[in-house]
Amino acid sequence: MSIPEPDAHAYQLALQHQLKLTKPTGALGRLEELSAWVCGVQGTFPPTLFSHPAVAIFAGDHGVARTAGTSAYPPEVTAQMVLNFLAGGAAVNVLARQMGAVVRVIDVSVDCDPGYADAIDPSVATQRIRRGSGSIDREDAMSEYEYERALDLGREVADALIDEGRDLLIPGDMGIGNTTSAAALIGYLTDSSAHDVTGRGTGVDDDTLARKTMTVQSAIDRARTTGATDALRIIGAPDIAAMSGFLEQAASRRTPVVLDGVVSCAAALATVTRSPKARQWWTAGHLSTEPATAIALRSMDLAPLIDLHLRLGEGTGALLALPVIEAAILTLNEMATFTSAGVTDR
Amino acid sequence: MSIPEPDAHAYQLALQHQLKLTKPTGALGRLEELSAWVCGVQGTFPPTLFSHPAVAIFAGDHGVARTAGTSAYPPEVTAQMVLNFLAGGAAVNVLARQMGAVVRVIDVSVDCDPGYADAIDPSVATQRIRRGSGSIDREDAMSEYEYERALDLGREVADALIDEGRDLLIPGDMGIGNTTSAAALIGYLTDSSAHDVTGRGTGVDDDTLARKTMTVQSAIDRARTTGATDALRIIGAPDIAAMSGFLEQAASRRTPVVLDGVVSCAAALATVTRSPKARQWWTAGHLSTEPATAIALRSMDLAPLIDLHLRLGEGTGALLALPVIEAAILTLNEMATFTSAGVTDR
Repeated sequence: MSIPEPDAHAYQLALQHQLKLTKPTGALGRLEELSAWVCGVQGTFPPTLFSHPAVAIFAGDHGVARTAGTSAYPPEVTAQMVLNFLAGGAAVNVLARQMGAVVRVIDVSVDCDPGYADAIDPSVATQRIRRGSGSIDREDAMSEYEYERALDLGREVADALIDEGRDLLIPGDMGIGNTTSAAALIGYLTDSSAHDVTGRGTGVDDDTLARKTMTVQSAIDRARTTGATDALRIIGAPDIAAMSGFLEQAASRRTPVVLDGVVSCAAALATVTRSPKARQWWTAGHLSTEPATAIALRSMDLAPLIDLHLRLGEGTGALLALPVIEAAILTLNEMATFTSAGVTDR
Repeated sequence: MSIPEPDAHAYQLALQHQLKLTKPTGALGRLEELSAWVCGVQGTFPPTLFSHPAVAIFAGDHGVARTAGTSAYPPEVTAQMVLNFLAGGAAVNVLARQMGAVVRVIDVSVDCDPGYADAIDPSVATQRIRRGSGSIDREDAMSEYEYERALDLGREVADALIDEGRDLLIPGDMGIGNTTSAAALIGYLTDSSAHDVTGRGTGVDDDTLARKTMTVQSAIDRARTTGATDALRIIGAPDIAAMSGFLEQAASRRTPVVLDGVVSCAAALATVTRSPKARQWWTAGHLSTEPATAIALRSMDLAPLIDLHLRLGEGTGALLALPVIEAAILTLNEMATFTSAGVTDR
């Protein structure tokens, strides 16, 4: 897919303007480069505030949660949490209201009876790819056909949001077992061991962590044996594949994205294997405590804006970063210059 | 001064309620304990949003900036920046507008002709303690009389803001040379060397950093020789002393404070030597890149909420933390529980 470059000229204009503002050079720290990134992705200096952010939550179940028991919560929680999202009661809903973002939920591969959410929002499950995913320690997460459909579904979600005027996108996740798939993907794509990438997810105990680590290693080994170029299909999951299509399409349409936790980082890492330039359209919202997150971000040369030890996913960490992005825009736009304020420069 | 304790019962109720919310235990990371801190300082569960935050900027010049040349900017910038604050053009003004906070400026010890700011705000300089401070590498920062007046000035600022209904206070700083005094104070109070606590402040070059470090060491040595119990008077500064009185009075009146950068951390550290309990009324807004900041926060067992490599002071880093505090309150108050949402707990 053809991914454009952000506007290097607008980026440079922002950095130059930062030097004129009434503060010591560099004293706004990461806000300065962040303001330039905004100008680059918006293609304009001065930048404007993002006024229509949106979270797209890709929900799906993961076969390993059933077969290997890698989560602290039972698989039915995925569907229950989708209903919680639709009712506005989850953390992502609260933070989205605070930040002025909308929340959309997409049932990519929830493993429950169809129709569970229809009474609340008929659009949620209409495009479901399949129920759950293959148990990635022993079988492919999905077929090639399902994989293409999942990528397309994610692209369509991005298109729909951008077409309705959403100017900043956040990939959210929901799925019992999804940190197992994310760890396996990140482990394979960064050539890391299961020991390094596997975390406690929702908070598993030591025994479950040991089992989860073995499961992740089996998945990584399966991908390595085949020299997989489509690891996302083999050891990923339909929901993560849809998120990857979403990220790719957003970049192709010059729409910036704030990455969230480990699942969105796995999707991002899989996306740059196909479309390296997509990374320039992203900023990292936060650092999840899931250890694979830092590994994935480092390999993409992305530094998280927030580090508050969250490990919730849903898009929550990315939402917390929105006021920081707003602060970067406002300081660039509204601060006085040395000249205008009559302040002596160094 | 008598400092009350935050409400331990409200604190515990918040932590207990966090366990019922629809998320894995602990998955909101530091937001969970932060929500409990809010309940403790507000003395109530559920908590309410802080709707009237205020930044009080304590401005003063520092003798060492003239005698030892420890800053990258000339001393006249302090007064110029006070005018910039009053005109609303500084970073602190921009971020305060974003966060819904008011900004007050207090000329504690600016070294310029009186009346410079009167046309804009007659209240700014009416209580000025003195012009500048003694050069702390060789003389006391202020007399005992000036010290008491500076503490009282800070207490009066806190009283005035609390009496007008401000519910969350931020100590801001402005003063060319103030990171030199802050480093010396933190070095002495934590038994650290000048090498460990001295940073580049506004961005000094290597030669100036070496000179600044020697100046800080001379100040630390001077305080050590006398075994000073009033280091704030001897190697501090009137503006930092006023900030300390402000912090102490806020705590005595059960009003929470978000600490900002290295200057506010120096004032906080000096405050806990007199009133250890005051610390419970504070949270650390951010981690400045000035190395003494981390040393001071660690010694007070405070962990910063934001780390974006800012080194601007003024209250800017603390303002960036306000949406995080708001997020902690909103998630505690608005999230569904496992029971209410029908989600299966672990």
